[in-house]
Amino acid sequence: MAVNLATPNPSDLLAIHGIRLGVTEAGIRKPNRKDLLLITLAAGTTVAGVFTRNRFCAAPVSVAKENLKRSKIRALIVNTGCANAGTGADGIERARQVCKNVSTLIGCNPEEVLPFSTGVIMESLPIDRIALGLPRCVDGLGAGNWAEAATAIMTTDTVAKAFSRRTDIGGSMVSVTGIAKGSGMIRPNMATMLGFIATDADIEQNLLQQITKFAADRTFNCVTVDGDTSTNDALVVMATGQNKSPRITKSDSTEYNLLRAAITEIASLLAQALVRDGEGASKFITINVAGGRTETECRSVGYAIAHSPLVKTAFFASDPNLGRILAAIGNACIDELDVSKVDLYLDDVNVAKSGERAQAYREEDGQRVMKRDEITIRVELNRGACSASLWTCDLSHDYVSINADYRS
Amino acid sequence: MAVNLATPNPSDLLAIHGIRLGVTEAGIRKPNRKDLLLITLAAGTTVAGVFTRNRFCAAPVSVAKENLKRSKIRALIVNTGCANAGTGADGIERARQVCKNVSTLIGCNPEEVLPFSTGVIMESLPIDRIALGLPRCVDGLGAGNWAEAATAIMTTDTVAKAFSRRTDIGGSMVSVTGIAKGSGMIRPNMATMLGFIATDADIEQNLLQQITKFAADRTFNCVTVDGDTSTNDALVVMATGQNKSPRITKSDSTEYNLLRAAITEIASLLAQALVRDGEGASKFITINVAGGRTETECRSVGYAIAHSPLVKTAFFASDPNLGRILAAIGNACIDELDVSKVDLYLDDVNVAKSGERAQAYREEDGQRVMKRDEITIRVELNRGACSASLWTCDLSHDYVSINADYRS
Repeated sequence: MAVNLATPNPSDLLAIHGIRLGVTEAGIRKPNRKDLLLITLAAGTTVAGVFTRNRFCAAPVSVAKENLKRSKIRALIVNTGCANAGTGADGIERARQVCKNVSTLIGCNPEEVLPFSTGVIMESLPIDRIALGLPRCVDGLGAGNWAEAATAIMTTDTVAKAFSRRTDIGGSMVSVTGIAKGSGMIRPNMATMLGFIATDADIEQNLLQQITKFAADRTFNCVTVDGDTSTNDALVVMATGQNKSPRITKSDSTEYNLLRAAITEIASLLAQALVRDGEGASKFITINVAGGRTETECRSVGYAIAHSPLVKTAFFASDPNLGRILAAIGNACIDELDVSKVDLYLDDVNVAKSGERAQAYREEDGQRVMKRDEITIRVELNRGACSASLWTCDLSHDYVSINADYRS
Repeated sequence: MAVNLATPNPSDLLAIHGIRLGVTEAGIRKPNRKDLLLITLAAGTTVAGVFTRNRFCAAPVSVAKENLKRSKIRALIVNTGCANAGTGADGIERARQVCKNVSTLIGCNPEEVLPFSTGVIMESLPIDRIALGLPRCVDGLGAGNWAEAATAIMTTDTVAKAFSRRTDIGGSMVSVTGIAKGSGMIRPNMATMLGFIATDADIEQNLLQQITKFAADRTFNCVTVDGDTSTNDALVVMATGQNKSPRITKSDSTEYNLLRAAITEIASLLAQALVRDGEGASKFITINVAGGRTETECRSVGYAIAHSPLVKTAFFASDPNLGRILAAIGNACIDELDVSKVDLYLDDVNVAKSGERAQAYREEDGQRVMKRDEITIRVELNRGACSASLWTCDLSHDYVSINADYRS
C-alpha cells in the first residue's frame, strides 16, 4: 500500500565506521519477528537528539533524555511491541534495567545507554524477554546490518525505511546512513516516531544538536498522517568522527553547512517515507503554503488542510470536492485573514482565485489531478513573504481497519 | 446508523404562535427531495444568532449577520444542496437576490430576511430554481410544519432532528421548539451547523442574544464529529412574544433564567442529536474532564481526545486500547501538566490511576464498557477545580465511505 516507496536494498546502505548493529527476535509482543535492536557506538562518538513533546512522554524517553544530558553515549537499545508509556515509576525502573543489562554485556556504564521503545501504550515492558534476547543482539553486531535494523524497528510499517548518502566535505568523504519507523500516530513535534541517523563525520556535540533540531524542524516536524503525536517520538543523530577528517567546530563553516545538508537530506527522505507508508495511505500529498506573514501561520494553514478528515477522504476518493480545502483554510484561525485574496492550486490547476472558484477552472481538470498518487496542494495567502511546506497522505478505509485491528 | 436517535413524531412538536413554516422540492442539487424551507415571523418577533468562526464564512452568513444587525427580521430562508461558500461577490449578490424574492412574496423589506445555505462548497447558488420553488413554500406555510422543516434542512443526516418543551415561566406557559441539521464537518465554533429555535416568550433582543450565546457555548460548541468547522454554521433563536406573558427585560430575573434553561435544553438535545447522527457513528461518547485549572484547559483535553483518530477507531473496534487516551491527553499541550496525577475512567471502570495503569484494572472490564453504544470517558487532572464536558462519536468505515462518496 505504500506510495512509491521501495524496500531498501541492503547493498545501498553505507556502513558507518564506529557503528555496529545487532537485532534479534525477543518475542516482546508477537513471535517470529525481529523486535529488538542494539546499536553500539565507538568511544568518542558525539550524540544529539530531539524528543516528543507529548506530556505523557514514555519512560524510555525520560531516561534517554537524562542519560544524553549526563553522559557520553556508547549504545542505543530499541524494542518494538511495547511503548513502556503510561507506566509510571515502574516503567522508568524497567527502562533503566534494560540499560543496565546492555551495559553489563558490552562493558560500559548504564548511563551510557539510551533506551527506546515503540508499540502499545500502558503495558508493562517485558524486561526478562529483553534480557534473554540481548546476548543474541551482541553476538550479531556488525556494521553492515542497517537494513535488518530498519526492519527490526517496524510496527505497523509495511516497508522498512533506510537511506544513505556520501558527500565530499572539505576534501574528505563523509557517509550518512539513517533508519526510521512509523506510519500512524504521526504528527511529530520536535521529533519523529523513531529515527536514527549516523555519520562518520567529526563534530562538536552542541553543533550536532543544532543540526539535529534544524533537520527535525524541516523534515520530521513537517509530516503528519493523523495529527497524533506519539508518546515515544525520538530522533537521534550520531557522529562517530571515524572518517579522519578535521573536527567541525564552527557553525559558520562550509563543512558545517555541508554536513547539515547531508543529514537534513537523509532526515527528509526518512520523514517523507513515513508518510508514503502512512497507515492506509494511497496518495502522497505535498502542501505548500506561501504568501503568509509568518512561517507559523503558513504552517497552521498547512496543518488545517492536512488534518481535515473531509479533505483527506476527498483525496482518497479522487473527488475534486475542493471547497473542503477552502473550509479548512478558513479553520486555521489566522487573524485578519482576507479570504478574498486566497488562491488555491492543485498541481498546475488553478482551482480558486481571490477566494472563489477560478473562472477557467473545470471539474475535469481537478479530477485529472486528483487521480494521481502524488499531488501538490498550493495555497497563496497573498499577505506576506513567508512560506512553509508539509507532507501528508489521504484517509482511507484501510486507516480505519489498521487502527481498529491494531492489537488483535 | 444513528445512535439511539428516533425520527421526531410530528405530533410531539409544539407549534409556536407567530411562526409559520413552508417547505418544497426546489431541485437545488438532487430531484425528489425537500430542499427549501421558508420560516415567517410575526411582526415584533425578537431574533438572535451566533455564526461560524470559519474565516471562509459563506455568503449567506455574511448577509444574515448584516441583516440581523440592521433590521427587525420577518423571515428566514434555508436551502440545502449548495453552501454558497467560496463564491465571492457573486455569492453575496445571489444570497441578497433570494432575500429579495422572499420579501416580494411575503411583503417585507429584503433586509428583513435572513438567508441560510448548506451543502457543497464553491458552487454557484441556483437562484432561478429557488425563485421557482419559493411560491410553493409560501402556499404551504403553516404552524404545524416543524417535522417537515427538520427534514427539509437535512444533508447527510439520516434522521431529522427536532425537539419541543413546554415550561411554566412566571405563571404562563411558554413553548420552545427547535430543529437542527448536520452530521459531518461538525466542530461548531460559537454556533452549530444550522439550528433554529423558536419560542413564544417575550424578551428583549440583547437578552435573547445573551441566551443564544450561553446555550451555544454549552451545547453546540461542545460537540464534535470530525473537528471540521463548517463555513455555514448558524444558530438562530426567535422569540415571538405571542404567549401574552410579560416581556423579559432583566437578566437577573427568574423568568430569564427559566427561559434560558428551556432554550439551552432544546439546544442540548439538538446538539447531541448531531453527534448521535454523526457520519458513520456507531457510538455516542461523552467526555468529562475535571480537576483542571481552567475550563479552557479541560476543553483542550476533551477535544484532544475527541479528535484523535486513534482513539475514535479504537472505540469503533470496541478495543480497550486505552493508552491511546493517555497519549491524546498528553497531546493537549497543557502547560506544566503533571501526568503522574492523571486518572482515567471509562464509565465506572478506573483504567488509569496517577498516570499509569490502575492496579485493579482488568482488560475484560475495559472490554465490557467498550462494547456499549453510550460511553462516558472521565478524565481527572487533579490540579484545579474547573471542568468541561463534550460529546463525540467514533470513527468508522462508514465515515470514510460517506465522505468519499458525498458528491457522487
